[in-house]
Amino acid sequence: MTTILLLQGANMAYLGKRQPEIYGTTPAAELDRMMQRHAKKRGVKLEIYYTHIEGEAIERIYRAADGRIDGLLMNPAGFNYAGYALRDCLRSMQFPYVEVHMTNIEKRGIKSVTAETARGVIAGFGLRSYLMGLDALLALIEDDRAARGSKQ
Amino acid sequence: MTTILLLQGANMAYLGKRQPEIYGTTPAAELDRMMQRHAKKRGVKLEIYYTHIEGEAIERIYRAADGRIDGLLMNPAGFNYAGYALRDCLRSMQFPYVEVHMTNIEKRGIKSVTAETARGVIAGFGLRSYLMGLDALLALIEDDRAARGSKQ
Amino acid sequence: MTTILLLQGANMAYLGKRQPEIYGTTPAAELDRMMQRHAKKRGVKLEIYYTHIEGEAIERIYRAADGRIDGLLMNPAGFNYAGYALRDCLRSMQFPYVEVHMTNIEKRGIKSVTAETARGVIAGFGLRSYLMGLDALLALIEDDRAARGSKQ
Amino acid sequence: MTTILLLQGANMAYLGKRQPEIYGTTPAAELDRMMQRHAKKRGVKLEIYYTHIEGEAIERIYRAADGRIDGLLMNPAGFNYAGYALRDCLRSMQFPYVEVHMTNIEKRGIKSVTAETARGVIAGFGLRSYLMGLDALLALIEDDRAARGSKQ
Amino acid sequence: MTTILLLQGANMAYLGKRQPEIYGTTPAAELDRMMQRHAKKRGVKLEIYYTHIEGEAIERIYRAADGRIDGLLMNPAGFNYAGYALRDCLRSMQFPYVEVHMTNIEKRGIKSVTAETARGVIAGFGLRSYLMGLDALLALIEDDRAARGSKQ
Amino acid sequence: MTTILLLQGANMAYLGKRQPEIYGTTPAAELDRMMQRHAKKRGVKLEIYYTHIEGEAIERIYRAADGRIDGLLMNPAGFNYAGYALRDCLRSMQFPYVEVHMTNIEKRGIKSVTAETARGVIAGFGLRSYLMGLDALLALIEDDRAARGSKQ
Amino acid sequence: MTTILLLQGANMAYLGKRQPEIYGTTPAAELDRMMQRHAKKRGVKLEIYYTHIEGEAIERIYRAADGRIDGLLMNPAGFNYAGYALRDCLRSMQFPYVEVHMTNIEKRGIKSVTAETARGVIAGFGLRSYLMGLDALLALIEDDRAARGSKQ
Amino acid sequence: MTTILLLQGANMAYLGKRQPEIYGTTPAAELDRMMQRHAKKRGVKLEIYYTHIEGEAIERIYRAADGRIDGLLMNPAGFNYAGYALRDCLRSMQFPYVEVHMTNIEKRGIKSVTAETARGVIAGFGLRSYLMGLDALLALIEDDRAARGSKQ
Amino acid sequence: MTTILLLQGANMAYLGKRQPEIYGTTPAAELDRMMQRHAKKRGVKLEIYYTHIEGEAIERIYRAADGRIDGLLMNPAGFNYAGYALRDCLRSMQFPYVEVHMTNIEKRGIKSVTAETARGVIAGFGLRSYLMGLDALLALIEDDRAARGSKQ
Amino acid sequence: MTTILLLQGANMAYLGKRQPEIYGTTPAAELDRMMQRHAKKRGVKLEIYYTHIEGEAIERIYRAADGRIDGLLMNPAGFNYAGYALRDCLRSMQFPYVEVHMTNIEKRGIKSVTAETARGVIAGFGLRSYLMGLDALLALIEDDRAARGSKQ
Amino acid sequence: MTTILLLQGANMAYLGKRQPEIYGTTPAAELDRMMQRHAKKRGVKLEIYYTHIEGEAIERIYRAADGRIDGLLMNPAGFNYAGYALRDCLRSMQFPYVEVHMTNIEKRGIKSVTAETARGVIAGFGLRSYLMGLDALLALIEDDRAARGSKQ
Amino acid sequence: MTTILLLQGANMAYLGKRQPEIYGTTPAAELDRMMQRHAKKRGVKLEIYYTHIEGEAIERIYRAADGRIDGLLMNPAGFNYAGYALRDCLRSMQFPYVEVHMTNIEKRGIKSVTAETARGVIAGFGLRSYLMGLDALLALIEDDRAARGSKQ
Repeated sequence: MTTILLLQGANMAYLGKRQPEIYGTTPAAELDRMMQRHAKKRGVKLEIYYTHIEGEAIERIYRAADGRIDGLLMNPAGFNYAGYALRDCLRSMQFPYVEVHMTNIEKRGIKSVTAETARGVIAGFGLRSYLMGLDALLALIEDDRAARGSKQ
Repeated sequence: MTTILLLQGANMAYLGKRQPEIYGTTPAAELDRMMQRHAKKRGVKLEIYYTHIEGEAIERIYRAADGRIDGLLMNPAGFNYAGYALRDCLRSMQFPYVEVHMTNIEKRGIKSVTAETARGVIAGFGLRSYLMGLDALLALIEDDRAARGSKQ
Repeated sequence: MTTILLLQGANMAYLGKRQPEIYGTTPAAELDRMMQRHAKKRGVKLEIYYTHIEGEAIERIYRAADGRIDGLLMNPAGFNYAGYALRDCLRSMQFPYVEVHMTNIEKRGIKSVTAETARGVIAGFGLRSYLMGLDALLALIEDDRAARGSKQ
Repeated sequence: MTTILLLQGANMAYLGKRQPEIYGTTPAAELDRMMQRHAKKRGVKLEIYYTHIEGEAIERIYRAADGRIDGLLMNPAGFNYAGYALRDCLRSMQFPYVEVHMTNIEKRGIKSVTAETARGVIAGFGLRSYLMGLDALLALIEDDRAARGSKQ
Repeated sequence: MTTILLLQGANMAYLGKRQPEIYGTTPAAELDRMMQRHAKKRGVKLEIYYTHIEGEAIERIYRAADGRIDGLLMNPAGFNYAGYALRDCLRSMQFPYVEVHMTNIEKRGIKSVTAETARGVIAGFGLRSYLMGLDALLALIEDDRAARGSKQ
Repeated sequence: MTTILLLQGANMAYLGKRQPEIYGTTPAAELDRMMQRHAKKRGVKLEIYYTHIEGEAIERIYRAADGRIDGLLMNPAGFNYAGYALRDCLRSMQFPYVEVHMTNIEKRGIKSVTAETARGVIAGFGLRSYLMGLDALLALIEDDRAARGSKQ
Repeated sequence: MTTILLLQGANMAYLGKRQPEIYGTTPAAELDRMMQRHAKKRGVKLEIYYTHIEGEAIERIYRAADGRIDGLLMNPAGFNYAGYALRDCLRSMQFPYVEVHMTNIEKRGIKSVTAETARGVIAGFGLRSYLMGLDALLALIEDDRAARGSKQ
Repeated sequence: MTTILLLQGANMAYLGKRQPEIYGTTPAAELDRMMQRHAKKRGVKLEIYYTHIEGEAIERIYRAADGRIDGLLMNPAGFNYAGYALRDCLRSMQFPYVEVHMTNIEKRGIKSVTAETARGVIAGFGLRSYLMGLDALLALIEDDRAARGSKQ
Repeated sequence: MTTILLLQGANMAYLGKRQPEIYGTTPAAELDRMMQRHAKKRGVKLEIYYTHIEGEAIERIYRAADGRIDGLLMNPAGFNYAGYALRDCLRSMQFPYVEVHMTNIEKRGIKSVTAETARGVIAGFGLRSYLMGLDALLALIEDDRAARGSKQ
Repeated sequence: MTTILLLQGANMAYLGKRQPEIYGTTPAAELDRMMQRHAKKRGVKLEIYYTHIEGEAIERIYRAADGRIDGLLMNPAGFNYAGYALRDCLRSMQFPYVEVHMTNIEKRGIKSVTAETARGVIAGFGLRSYLMGLDALLALIEDDRAARGSKQ
Repeated sequence: MTTILLLQGANMAYLGKRQPEIYGTTPAAELDRMMQRHAKKRGVKLEIYYTHIEGEAIERIYRAADGRIDGLLMNPAGFNYAGYALRDCLRSMQFPYVEVHMTNIEKRGIKSVTAETARGVIAGFGLRSYLMGLDALLALIEDDRAARGSKQ
Repeated sequence: MTTILLLQGANMAYLGKRQPEIYGTTPAAELDRMMQRHAKKRGVKLEIYYTHIEGEAIERIYRAADGRIDGLLMNPAGFNYAGYALRDCLRSMQFPYVEVHMTNIEKRGIKSVTAETARGVIAGFGLRSYLMGLDALLALIEDDRAARGSKQ
């Protein structure tokens, strides 16, 4: 069964309470339920992990790489600015990584240092960014499987 | 009936022939057919316009604003670098604008000057960026309608 | 009879509809009527030309240089940012050029690349900038005629 | 009776003697007479103040704000480069401020730090910049009065 | 008796009238009375000096250095931006200098060029910044006396 | 009872042992006792938390926001340089935040990235910075309460 | 028969009239005749195209790529500064491109953004730059044919 | 007995699996055994600590400073980019610090922010960098002991 | 009789008391006597003027230009950093200007904004810089007179 | 007889052995023979000089200026980056200088500091750059002679 | 027999006399003897070459490349700052290059422009840097031989 | 007998022939005679050395340091721009160094990288700069002797 890791970066656990004029009032728990429903509909397993600590995010990704994970969905959030070690970690991952942001960070003058390691980036669609990101990630996984299949 | 304008910036008409190692071999005409099929499936009308001339893109957008258009989907392509007049034009549009790029331009060190005027940006999924962009744009239009409805 | 070319740069045709909180609600057609009335009162002929395309503005200025034109009044608008070819064109013109802006672009952090080729610049007086610009341009033409006269 | 303060910044008192190839040979005293005649024609009172000292300019503007002044016309001249305290002072003034320059400072690569606090800027018309500036300032005062009137 | 010089930089004399949304409505005279009361309570003599002219501030500080002054409290205000001569002057003073700002200038993107010569900086507490600054300055004077005492 | 959180950033736990020529020889434990005595005198409850890990500081602040805390006193110390996630977290806090530094970091060429989110900043008074910071924070809390009271 | 496209960028149509102290007094029509004579002598067909509009230049190049063209000779002129879309277009062309400038633009502090896509650049020899450019382009075409021949 | 701390920064625990084309295929565990054998041969005790979290590295170094450690060998790895708090921590250590990198980071355009606190830096010799680093560190410890001895 | 103006910029009046480790302990009054003795020996008249206020320096120079002065010797001192208005004033002076500094400001990382208007600069010889400067200025005046003489 | 100096800058003596994937495998000696044959065909004398030392290149050019040389052809090569003394030397030469590069250095992001002193620059045609450069230089010499002739 | 070239850059010949507080008092001749002893112990031949002239260093390296040399050890010293031609030369060498510095240049804010061409860099261990550098270079030579052997 | 070394940097040997509009027509040989006469008058021995090669200048200075030289007078000329190795060499010299320039290099936008190592700088007095420089250097030598004498 396809397994996806959703990683929520620094400050995301406070979703719904932090700057609601920008991020809305939906709490993190509800976002999780929405994502689990969506994953169920798509027939995939979804593991969700929140952390404010960059090194823990790195650790979690290495564990995912050692175990069996098929793709990474991440909102780096507070790691946007100086998450260089996280970026180095992502560079060596084999599975596809899709980066999501609730807001169009470009418009807010924010640059994500991890974005260059992603296969694709989705930004600006609020909670919908997550749903779109999961679907896009699954499509990439399918593509990769098809590509590997055709090589054999 | 919902109407969408798809604007293809400078060099896009040559798709499939230009730098196929980056942009693939699908010609522009086939991209158009794919998009029209998708639009039909979604029950929306799609107008497609190609131009290498920034001023014509501006003109086309103003005409869209005067007539009845519900959203703009654009790949600025060659206008990425110096399309400041286009950016000023986009700033005054009422309908939502979604910007698409076939590649993850972030990874290639390219910065789009129009991106800051978009509601959302999708980059890195090849032709699929267009399909995702159309769907995302339609969802934004729905959102706006719902928001306007609830105010009445 | 003294003849003046008024050139309106990218996005100006949409005046009154674009960002009215900045540029007001007077449409371009009304601005034209106002300027024609003012030209008539001053006893000069006024040709007005709108374009979003920098190359067309260049073409129009060369035609003016070939025909009989005594001065240029221009609001570069969208050409403010990257109108370098236009700037090169203006550098070789013999007749005086006066640049006008409806807003104080300095306050908005915008720099016009063509301003350095102007004899004078007027910024921040709304529609009145055009009226002042026309009068100032006519005065410069008078000055130049007087200077040429005194040399003979 | 409408009262205007004309403030001449550092080096202006030497007009006519300093770099005449740029600023002409009209001395400051003659500029003053020209401006007083113009003010008389317009039916307004004009106070003229020259200083090389930024702090004295600030002091003079505060006194104007305490007394009864309807608008400020200023050529910052030598304060163009580092007049930050003057800029802070101007930010808190209620009356309109119009900035004038005899030359097109843009062409000479000079940037005025006070320009961003002006309602409008006029540059490049020699002594005529002052006459135009006075008229433009009076028009702005009229506008503001009309706007205040319509609110009541 | 311990004597303190309070120096108020450019624009401070207009306190209460300038940008009250930032600096409040308390006039400079009232601030002075508040400070004198506080100085009396602490048993110290307070001399207050206002100027918009950087050179006068420098002059005043040298006179303080020649006479008998035990510490300097200053809000550089308009001298924040280009007060380099003032900074050079402060570098050679023997008595402690405490710099105060009514607002958190960091938040407003302002950098004080004199701050590096201060023993301490207090910013963001409105009028209270002055009271805190006076107390902190007195404590520093005590420290220095104690240190000198222990060396003998 | 008013409750304050004192947060000590990276390297502060080593106070008294790290670079004593800059930070003195008072150990962290003694600073804590001094602060608790001061809090007791003021009749407030003080929680003190030390961490070298930015993500733990973020976590602690969110917990404070969920529980009952009235103000934050923080020395970001090692987080001065790249604490962007911490800055994003502080931006959404409702309670006032006062930032303290033992040294005048301006003089040492250090810039704190969190300072812009503070209500006030105190720097350069050694251990006394903490005492002054606590008093200033309590005063701000009083102000806010008074403001809320007057609105009812 | 070998066919060459000569593309003259923005402002070139005005050759001989624009800044003759820099570009000489030979009009564009005469340059065309000179080039046609030279092409005839070399036994090649020469198509000449002038435009001030970057997008038209792009369009013309794509048409050349679709039809039968063996090499491109271009003086980007006014497109030197911001012709990024043109540069992207040129990057995908199969035929060799030689860029010519009448003046040594390096000496005049001008940088051509399209130059990096050229096989060779010739600058500073006045009209002769065109003749040299045509000969160099023909030699490159010969080289390429020889190289293709030797691979078979 | 001389005791050395070997600290491995962010991402090093994944050695052998991360970007093997750059770092080789030797796993971290084998590197540890190699280092322990080398330490044994030199007759010193070696403590090895891996962490992805900068704050934990800081904590570990302070603990080493409190206990008995004679020198630090570190590969900052992922802390290269933004490890400013770590750098502050290292500045106050009494024992010598030697920094090692497996690759020549200069060639890869990477700058280590902690390097300036090291006594010496060794970069580009793969696993051998660690062996050389340990020997160099022991030599520095000997030097320091000799220097201290000669002062008594 | 040849007349020289010696202008001493901000902070120079405090010579001998300000930073004696850099500028020595000779007071300004003694420097004046030394210069007057030297002027007497050379048979020239020397006027000395001290000011901390840039605008007063400007005023004094204009007065010198109106009266009869043959050359200017100046140590801009505190005006080094932002004396742009002073620089503009100096640009229009007909008499030669020699700039002197007691220290080698280059070594101290200081750049004088007025230096570019000087005929010559002498830096780094302590009080001797003034003596050398006066002699050099007199030589330049002689040169100019000789040149004027040979033209007649 | 017309005499040309061909100067080959730092690293050129190693041509054919250094980075052959960029510069090809033709050795310097063969390039020399090719150039001598070409010079013979053109009826001119060619002196060739190789050096890695910038000061020797300067010396050689001065000797050429003293003797009888009609033009300079140079590939600055390793002097591209910091050859400022060479640039100063070239500025004072009377004979024309043509700069050649085998590769299009623009494309490789290299800037030649001497290029601004050349009459013309040719880059990107491999060894042919030299042949073209020699012909172009001869044409310039002819031009100069014709110009001098017509003045007599 | 393995042969190594040790190249000592600008100023190194003066070792022991230049800035002994930084580089110690060991003269260059003694360093040479130490290195020859070490080379003898390792059974390799060592050629040592000192020069202050960058072009001579380049020349020497090319001669080494033509003759039989197995590796380069270099302290660029004075060539650190602008040795770009030397860097280009080093880029084309086949044998391994190890760069050594006696001090940790990072700590002194110096950047070596040749470092990016090295296989490895050793900095900060005084004279010992040379011994370590020689051993490391020999190990790299062994590695390369082994790699070449395994390919056959 | 006091001995002075006069070092003339790159391009100075060509004095009188290079850019005479800037440097005049006096040849180097005549400058040398003038300096020798002046040295004789002052009773000192003067050694003059010209070179275009930075490394030779360095070599010459070290030889001077080893022999008996009491001061260095230098016009770095072409070494102004990138003479960093020369700067490092000068930093370790014990004798005073005075830098001279014939022109006011500040006015010409040139910065000398060696200037920071000089005791004093004299610029802008043509040949006279050398005479003034020699006298100033002798005075500094006297000062140093007096200072050494008073310490004993």
